[in-house]
Amino acid sequence: MKIPTIGDMLTARGRIAACCHHTPVLTSSLLNVMTGAQLYFKCENFQKAGAFKARGASNAVFGLSKDQAKKGVATHSSGNHGTCLSYAAGRRGIPCTVVMPRTAPQAKKDAVKGYGGRVVECEPSTSSREAVFADVVAETAAEFVHPYNDHRVIAGQATCAAELVEQVEGLDAVVAPIGGGGMVSGTCLTLSSLAPKVKIFAAEPEKADDAYRSFKAGHIIADDAPETVADGLKVPLKELTWHFVSRYVSDIHTASEQEIVDAMKLIWKRLKIVIEPSSAVPLATILKHPEVFAGKRIGVILTGGNVDLEKLPWS
Amino acid sequence: MKIPTIGDMLTARGRIAACCHHTPVLTSSLLNVMTGAQLYFKCENFQKAGAFKARGASNAVFGLSKDQAKKGVATHSSGNHGTCLSYAAGRRGIPCTVVMPRTAPQAKKDAVKGYGGRVVECEPSTSSREAVFADVVAETAAEFVHPYNDHRVIAGQATCAAELVEQVEGLDAVVAPIGGGGMVSGTCLTLSSLAPKVKIFAAEPEKADDAYRSFKAGHIIADDAPETVADGLKVPLKELTWHFVSRYVSDIHTASEQEIVDAMKLIWKRLKIVIEPSSAVPLATILKHPEVFAGKRIGVILTGGNVDLEKLPWS
Repeated sequence: MKIPTIGDMLTARGRIAACCHHTPVLTSSLLNVMTGAQLYFKCENFQKAGAFKARGASNAVFGLSKDQAKKGVATHSSGNHGTCLSYAAGRRGIPCTVVMPRTAPQAKKDAVKGYGGRVVECEPSTSSREAVFADVVAETAAEFVHPYNDHRVIAGQATCAAELVEQVEGLDAVVAPIGGGGMVSGTCLTLSSLAPKVKIFAAEPEKADDAYRSFKAGHIIADDAPETVADGLKVPLKELTWHFVSRYVSDIHTASEQEIVDAMKLIWKRLKIVIEPSSAVPLATILKHPEVFAGKRIGVILTGGNVDLEKLPWS
Repeated sequence: MKIPTIGDMLTARGRIAACCHHTPVLTSSLLNVMTGAQLYFKCENFQKAGAFKARGASNAVFGLSKDQAKKGVATHSSGNHGTCLSYAAGRRGIPCTVVMPRTAPQAKKDAVKGYGGRVVECEPSTSSREAVFADVVAETAAEFVHPYNDHRVIAGQATCAAELVEQVEGLDAVVAPIGGGGMVSGTCLTLSSLAPKVKIFAAEPEKADDAYRSFKAGHIIADDAPETVADGLKVPLKELTWHFVSRYVSDIHTASEQEIVDAMKLIWKRLKIVIEPSSAVPLATILKHPEVFAGKRIGVILTGGNVDLEKLPWS
């Protein structure tokens, strides 16, 4: 297991500068009043392909040797990682294959194809996904880029926190959503080195609280097919993300489905931006635990903005 | 009729700096590809109280003498102007009364009250509104701030284009939605003086095309109770806005209801921001008339972001 270093983050930063946005930080005086904290929202919903995962995917793709690059990249993902890997591969002009369950939303398949990637469908089961994915790699010799359990991906995600601490002085803490733990691990990587006084909190749906339970137990506990409106956060921690989470995270808070949807609407209404449900989990936990955050300067990572406008969780 | 000058705009800029945002400009490579133009979106949806009207309202409120300020301000509006006037009055700590039809959405009434203003209801007819408003002014001696036919309001709205030409070099044109014509008039005021080579286009719903028909006829034609999804654009031009529109606007284009909704969704999906339907009319007309805009650098004014998330026009 290769643990990425702060040097890897700095290399990633230079590598992805041409194909990823330096995203803005927004504030809302009303949300500050509501929480009693100073909130600084890092807007990865404005990131290329609509999610922070463009950072990690771009770092992996642009770090490949020329020979490997010719063979392309592959992954399995029905979420933002597939879209973002397709985006990054398209920017380098190399092949990308994404294995997705045939039951995945058409919009997600179209997004991968829209950036030039190829979608290969599997049945919606782990065994089918693994078999189909093995076939894809055997056929193409493509480089596997895991959605989060990959040192190149984590070094890429780590660039987000590096921007944030430059944009906002004197942060007391950063709150990020946790699913597989890629964004949280990247945040740990950067802050533990560049700003070790800044606390790191993770925010998770109650209905997919495997990271919370793992954190309390001291070892990885995987959920069994959790369901939550925050569909980016259903996946479990893996050994590399557990390395960072177990060492550097101060605490993990959870929020109910209704609290997540309420926080999402609040951000849409007050910040006038489109975020996906996963991005709302940090604010939901901040509203739920004012005693932890009040009076502090808090960075809040809004991880993405890819939602189906026809199927909003309150409609 | 007092015509505001570029000096009035500069005075407004200083006057409102403490209570209005300098709003950002966003771009989208996909929308540039779709239109063949370089589009620069001026995000007044991020403005205080969610709309550009905070500029004009703040200029009017903060320009009042101390004696007049004590008596407060009043207006009739069931839209953003009422909310923004309440916001500005709240910032100065003076009374604000907004006359609204009792049939106006509760959310609009709540928004006025949320900033500290008072709502007085009238029947949904012009005669009732005028009678109730006259009573309010007789009772309070409040200063009437018209939503757009007011030199102080236009000088305030004009600060938006002043920011835009500083933010984007070498603009060929600016496109803004037109209802009563306050934003367009402010844009004319600023550009005719500071950047006279930049063309000004207005964008209007087909179903409320009184400005278009007035422009072609050469005199003001008022619509009779038009209905459109772009509910901020139903009001007619008045003599002061006609002064600017008739002199400085290059052309007015219209868009259908469906074209407006499609453009609105496109902006939500691609820019990841929340805008109200009126704000989508410029992009709808740019997509409809590529021959006018292709190859050019175009400023697009997104006028506001106040929508009812429970009642989106595509749901």
